[in-house]
Amino acid sequence: MNIHQMWAPYPQLAEELEVTLQLMEDSIQIENKEIEQAILAMIHSGGKLLRPAYQLLFSQFGPTKDEQKAIALSASIEMLHTATLVHDDIVDHADTRRNLPTIRSLFGNQTAVYAGDYLFICCFKLLADYSSSLKSIQLNSKSMEKVLSGELGQMDTHYDFSMTIDQYIDNISGKTAELFALSSFIGAYESGCSDQFSNKCREIGKNIGIAFQIIDDILDYTQSSGHIGKPVLEDVKQGVYSLPLLYALKKDRKKLLPYLEKRENLSTEETQEVYQLVHSLGGVDNAQKLAEKYTQKALKAINKLPENDLHTKDLLFEITSKILTRTS
Amino acid sequence: MNIHQMWAPYPQLAEELEVTLQLMEDSIQIENKEIEQAILAMIHSGGKLLRPAYQLLFSQFGPTKDEQKAIALSASIEMLHTATLVHDDIVDHADTRRNLPTIRSLFGNQTAVYAGDYLFICCFKLLADYSSSLKSIQLNSKSMEKVLSGELGQMDTHYDFSMTIDQYIDNISGKTAELFALSSFIGAYESGCSDQFSNKCREIGKNIGIAFQIIDDILDYTQSSGHIGKPVLEDVKQGVYSLPLLYALKKDRKKLLPYLEKRENLSTEETQEVYQLVHSLGGVDNAQKLAEKYTQKALKAINKLPENDLHTKDLLFEITSKILTRTS
Repeated sequence: MNIHQMWAPYPQLAEELEVTLQLMEDSIQIENKEIEQAILAMIHSGGKLLRPAYQLLFSQFGPTKDEQKAIALSASIEMLHTATLVHDDIVDHADTRRNLPTIRSLFGNQTAVYAGDYLFICCFKLLADYSSSLKSIQLNSKSMEKVLSGELGQMDTHYDFSMTIDQYIDNISGKTAELFALSSFIGAYESGCSDQFSNKCREIGKNIGIAFQIIDDILDYTQSSGHIGKPVLEDVKQGVYSLPLLYALKKDRKKLLPYLEKRENLSTEETQEVYQLVHSLGGVDNAQKLAEKYTQKALKAINKLPENDLHTKDLLFEITSKILTRTS
Repeated sequence: MNIHQMWAPYPQLAEELEVTLQLMEDSIQIENKEIEQAILAMIHSGGKLLRPAYQLLFSQFGPTKDEQKAIALSASIEMLHTATLVHDDIVDHADTRRNLPTIRSLFGNQTAVYAGDYLFICCFKLLADYSSSLKSIQLNSKSMEKVLSGELGQMDTHYDFSMTIDQYIDNISGKTAELFALSSFIGAYESGCSDQFSNKCREIGKNIGIAFQIIDDILDYTQSSGHIGKPVLEDVKQGVYSLPLLYALKKDRKKLLPYLEKRENLSTEETQEVYQLVHSLGGVDNAQKLAEKYTQKALKAINKLPENDLHTKDLLFEITSKILTRTS
């Protein structure tokens, strides 16, 4: 078991995340050992465990200290995240993720479909087994619904040359930010915080999630394939347009449109030219500015959180600052 | 709204099933209206609604009369079933189901993956919103896990020329029978029946489910493609071997093996020869005998159920007899 090195400076959190991973591992029991191994390998492939981390941190604000419950809930959220990744890899025809072969590349799409389904169910099983109330399961399932309708919403916008910045933010709000929002909300709420306080945490999580996704989309334009583990600009060919490209389009539609209209027939050289254009038209810079706006919103709200013995507020500030200035 | 004509003789049940369909419909809200319509069309495409029907019938045995809850739970079970069908159609590359184009054939595999996921979540949402206890959600999620590990288990047995009859029964127990068992159990349990009684209902549901799946597999060998809405014997090419074939293999392995070893390269004429061999080697007859055994087990246990004002026992007997002697 080895969790991401970024947690080394925070020993208590690191330990809880180890237990979270262990619980995820224990909840997966498939007769077909080959598939089981592949799922376990995926779980251990060094994802940052950000969603569980936020869930655990926000759970430190409430009066109820039930570590087992907090860990089970954070495992269930990471399980949901993993389920969507397995299915995303089918949709994206991805062969690798985090430098490991994907389930679909190892066993084919068929197995990957059911493996993702299985992880969804595991998520639900963990929730059902450890939640203290029907209410929290209801909140979870409502959030999960938003995540999925976010995914379905994005289907709608493939090759949409007229997508607005607002539509993009809407999309990532459903797809990525909702799960950060849920983690933060459920952490607070299930540890006994008030509805009002828990909703503030939700808002913080949402802003973190939006900034996080924008930065992820920026990294596609600033990193080489080796670093981020998925082919740079593959998305553009598949008609998924992210913020840097949208800003560049806004700046000079005429220049970029001829490329985008080639859709999946874009050549390797042409994607390189798109890459250059997005930079020279200020797409990356503008996206960075917007990410910064959401980052500052989140940090400002974190600054207003109450103090406690565990210095949770400081931890949240430090970790969030680190994550949202990452360059890899 | 039109439910399957088989329910016409049972007006109360028919009405409850209409409301079940309505609730399923209401719980689906996707911004992308095209995908929403496709999912709704699938829900209304004339599936028999057997699982909800059993759930509703078994709920008549308990002291608690909460029609709204019974209907919500039956909607959630049918939703789970529909989710697995959407994903099955991806796995089977199916273009039609119940003579309607499948979601994958209309919108591609990408949308179908997320549409199935969305239906899974809708199933959770209904469960979470209407269950009376965490216990029933736990039972549901445990059953759902069995259904999925059943699907994953079957992946393991593709092109398995040595699969035994017991392994086949194991596979369909997870894949099909578990959902019938769950419907029957949850119907009884959530209406306030004892654990012991509810487990008897589970056993009945399981036997019905096993017989049902065997009959479904027999129909592949006794019907033409027009009737059952999916290409006959496509499964054989894809390495999914069902009971009639397994019995035939048991009888004369040497005769069948050369065909099966051609795997996906089996020609249309050769599949026709397999079809004939399965019949002449007694595969269909033997499968029918085994289905009959499970049918009788179920009917015998139904006969021992208590009488009530709604004549539930007689209804269960009649409906089960009808379903398990179907020839189409």
